[in-house]
Amino acid sequence: MNPSERQIAEGILFTDQYQLTMAQLYYRVGLHERPAQFDHFFRSYPDYGNHKAGYCINAGLEWLVDWMQQVRFRDEDIAYMRAQTGQRGERLFADDFLDWLRANGTFDGITMYAIPEGRVVHPNVPLTVVKGPLAMAQILETALLNHLNYPTLIATKAARIRDAGRGQLMLEFGLRRAHERAGNAGARAALIGGADFTSNTGVSHVLGYPPKGTHAHSMVQAFMALGEGELGAFRAYADVYPDDCLLLVDTIDTLESGVPNAIKVFEELRRKGHEPVGIRLDSGDLAYISVQASRMLDEAGFENVSIVLSNQLDELTILQILTQIQQEAPQSGVDADHVIDRLVYGVGTRLITSRGASALDGVYKLVAIQGDDGGWLPALKVSETPAKIPNPGQKRAWRVYDRRGKATADLLSLDEEDPRAMPEILLHHPAEHTTYRTLSQEAISEIEPLHVEVLNAGRLVYDMPSIDDMRRQRQADVERLDVGVRRLLNPHIYHVSLTERLWNLKVALIESAEENG
Amino acid sequence: MNPSERQIAEGILFTDQYQLTMAQLYYRVGLHERPAQFDHFFRSYPDYGNHKAGYCINAGLEWLVDWMQQVRFRDEDIAYMRAQTGQRGERLFADDFLDWLRANGTFDGITMYAIPEGRVVHPNVPLTVVKGPLAMAQILETALLNHLNYPTLIATKAARIRDAGRGQLMLEFGLRRAHERAGNAGARAALIGGADFTSNTGVSHVLGYPPKGTHAHSMVQAFMALGEGELGAFRAYADVYPDDCLLLVDTIDTLESGVPNAIKVFEELRRKGHEPVGIRLDSGDLAYISVQASRMLDEAGFENVSIVLSNQLDELTILQILTQIQQEAPQSGVDADHVIDRLVYGVGTRLITSRGASALDGVYKLVAIQGDDGGWLPALKVSETPAKIPNPGQKRAWRVYDRRGKATADLLSLDEEDPRAMPEILLHHPAEHTTYRTLSQEAISEIEPLHVEVLNAGRLVYDMPSIDDMRRQRQADVERLDVGVRRLLNPHIYHVSLTERLWNLKVALIESAEENG
Repeated sequence: MNPSERQIAEGILFTDQYQLTMAQLYYRVGLHERPAQFDHFFRSYPDYGNHKAGYCINAGLEWLVDWMQQVRFRDEDIAYMRAQTGQRGERLFADDFLDWLRANGTFDGITMYAIPEGRVVHPNVPLTVVKGPLAMAQILETALLNHLNYPTLIATKAARIRDAGRGQLMLEFGLRRAHERAGNAGARAALIGGADFTSNTGVSHVLGYPPKGTHAHSMVQAFMALGEGELGAFRAYADVYPDDCLLLVDTIDTLESGVPNAIKVFEELRRKGHEPVGIRLDSGDLAYISVQASRMLDEAGFENVSIVLSNQLDELTILQILTQIQQEAPQSGVDADHVIDRLVYGVGTRLITSRGASALDGVYKLVAIQGDDGGWLPALKVSETPAKIPNPGQKRAWRVYDRRGKATADLLSLDEEDPRAMPEILLHHPAEHTTYRTLSQEAISEIEPLHVEVLNAGRLVYDMPSIDDMRRQRQADVERLDVGVRRLLNPHIYHVSLTERLWNLKVALIESAEENG
Repeated sequence: MNPSERQIAEGILFTDQYQLTMAQLYYRVGLHERPAQFDHFFRSYPDYGNHKAGYCINAGLEWLVDWMQQVRFRDEDIAYMRAQTGQRGERLFADDFLDWLRANGTFDGITMYAIPEGRVVHPNVPLTVVKGPLAMAQILETALLNHLNYPTLIATKAARIRDAGRGQLMLEFGLRRAHERAGNAGARAALIGGADFTSNTGVSHVLGYPPKGTHAHSMVQAFMALGEGELGAFRAYADVYPDDCLLLVDTIDTLESGVPNAIKVFEELRRKGHEPVGIRLDSGDLAYISVQASRMLDEAGFENVSIVLSNQLDELTILQILTQIQQEAPQSGVDADHVIDRLVYGVGTRLITSRGASALDGVYKLVAIQGDDGGWLPALKVSETPAKIPNPGQKRAWRVYDRRGKATADLLSLDEEDPRAMPEILLHHPAEHTTYRTLSQEAISEIEPLHVEVLNAGRLVYDMPSIDDMRRQRQADVERLDVGVRRLLNPHIYHVSLTERLWNLKVALIESAEENG
């Protein structure tokens, strides 16, 4: 793609064709400027096959809003639509609609509420609420889902990996295996969800974090081919980066060649007044080699040197490595906690592509539309499975904390309801008629509204938090989850409930749709 | 990101930090302009868990080359690198290196050979060969892998889905679940690999294909909320698009409401002189409903109307749907082939994210470097597992066809070898000492070189084929595979072999590395 093609492909036409044909239909029947509300939510936690998430970390909002404010229907986009034809060669889009789109085809009419980035989120709770003229709110669907589904997926994976790694330093290394340009959005989401740094240089610059890295096997290979061997490569690296010396030790044989050569170079560095940073292990039995390398480094007087692990790491492999280190270290006379405390995780492919669950099932559903009299009418889709029926109408989302300060449920209410003012709260299951529980206010320590207003008629009315702020929020939210919800395997199911009035509205609408279909 | 941040994040700094620190090291030791060769290849076919690919479809080259020709180290990039600091706060990149990079930091010195997009490819065969000055050839690594891994993954998935769907029309629908901007590269790869069209409007425009789509549930819901019901929505759609009328029939109840309402509207259309296009099914038992909907459409005289299926389709779900239709159709008095012949597949999430295998393990390895005397020295990494040891040195790649015209092996030779001139060819297993087979020229119908020259010292010397050409190549290549290699489950392992001389070189280098480590 050349730059002007990229402007088309990543501009307002970064959407599905049916959004445009539906917009013209709404124009034709006079509904294009009718106020409507769409909810964005996901239906189920990522299921990685042999393990599953019990919570997600919300991410992607800021870059979505940036995109919304940057794009509009330009002359080039309109000209392309004018040239589109249907099955019989007839023009697909008429001039009156295109004129309207050229003049009004922006997101300036959109009001948006959202749960902030970095927050723990759960299925069926609207993460983003869009109110605005039907045509443009509809056209927004594809790009909104595209900008939010993937970052939330990756921030979630990063939070799990951080949890498995016991808070040790974690580096995002995945750009080469990322899905093309998404490497940038993925690195940002990883930083929100749990990574401390990324190797991705450009996005580090944009986000204000120093990029991190070591060196590749190719550097050692080049020196070997030229007859200077691994030791020559290590010495060259130490000469150029005496205070940032982190050596990849597995090009030939980690314990026989790499670690001894690294120690030799580290000793030379120290004699010159520098302290080495670490070694990196990228192959083999990482737990076993970590223990042995740690022992060799200690014996040479380098107790504070880091051991960076990489090669297909994710939450389960880290869990396995730490378990094995605790079993094996004592057998080698090494303190397991000392080994673990010096570990750094370099996490690539499996984080940036969310291995095992490569998509989040976020959807964007019409939930209300203004009637001819100006009042709001709830809308819903009655599909075959009760659990897939969206919750209708204008709603608010709340998080309810129990007396221990732990989050016990997310609660959806009608727009005009405030559960903080209710003497007791009935939490109704979103799909099952007879499942509910009741909480008295005494059992509750806090009820927190989850949405903030982000856009008011297209105007940004929200101070986007810094990534550091998002990380603090993420950490606080994760700590307020029950341990059972946090665990990697078979997590407890967190409750997402409806108030009694919202439940009654949903039942009434389903019955009415079934009668009048 | 604002546009200038995007220029940084998607420009030459769309790379891993260690590429830049290694480049400075090469500069410091005087190797930065030393000619070197890197091979790009993948190690294993995508493994989707319960099924696995037996071949891949190469994709991504054109947009990689576009990127290489568009980016360079600009003043802004250099200024950022100048500001970077290491562990002790010292400057990471020195002025002399940055001056060199500002003047020479382009891919103008790169010569590249590649296997064209759309071709069937196999593990360990270099898909891309990069020759050029060591520093810039090294810096290219991350972006090259990023631009090629993902499209090849998606083109491969698309080819499998097309094969499962028996060549019926296939539409790519995945933008909303794609990994952010990669939705565009993914749509392009899907078109190369097997999709006929995509719903992605912008990229369709750039690539010159008409975008395709139907409408969403939200349109029906809006009409329902306003009291006009599903039928009102269908009528409005037919009014606006009388020659492109494709109706989504599962908002309420597919067989009780959606299909009867669609038939009513189709009859109205026909009375006005228009022919309807189709219906779309997006939920429920797609095989069962297809059969019943087909029967109802036939009975109403709409035998030629398409049935578009969507909802979590991939190669296995399509295989299952077709099998079930063949079993169930006769029980309903319907001809199974007639149902299958009217199907169109709308494939979304599982294609655009390659569900089950969300990354291709493509790597970029130094294989040769020029020695001080100007001769080329083979380089290789000796890691713990024999199968992971790259094939060293400058090589050529060939495809050998048997007497039936079927591809029987890909063969790697030394640069100066031409297997077409050998009386018989010894095909050596790339990792196992005692495994080889011998082919006489009589057993061979054709030996085809696989690489084309793409860049010569940065200059584009290759006419990029059109996507239609790539598709024809893909289809021809897939047809020349053995059925056993093509099958979805447990495919035969296609042979990738070394010539005897290349095998001997590899063995000699491994022994020498082990002695001199």
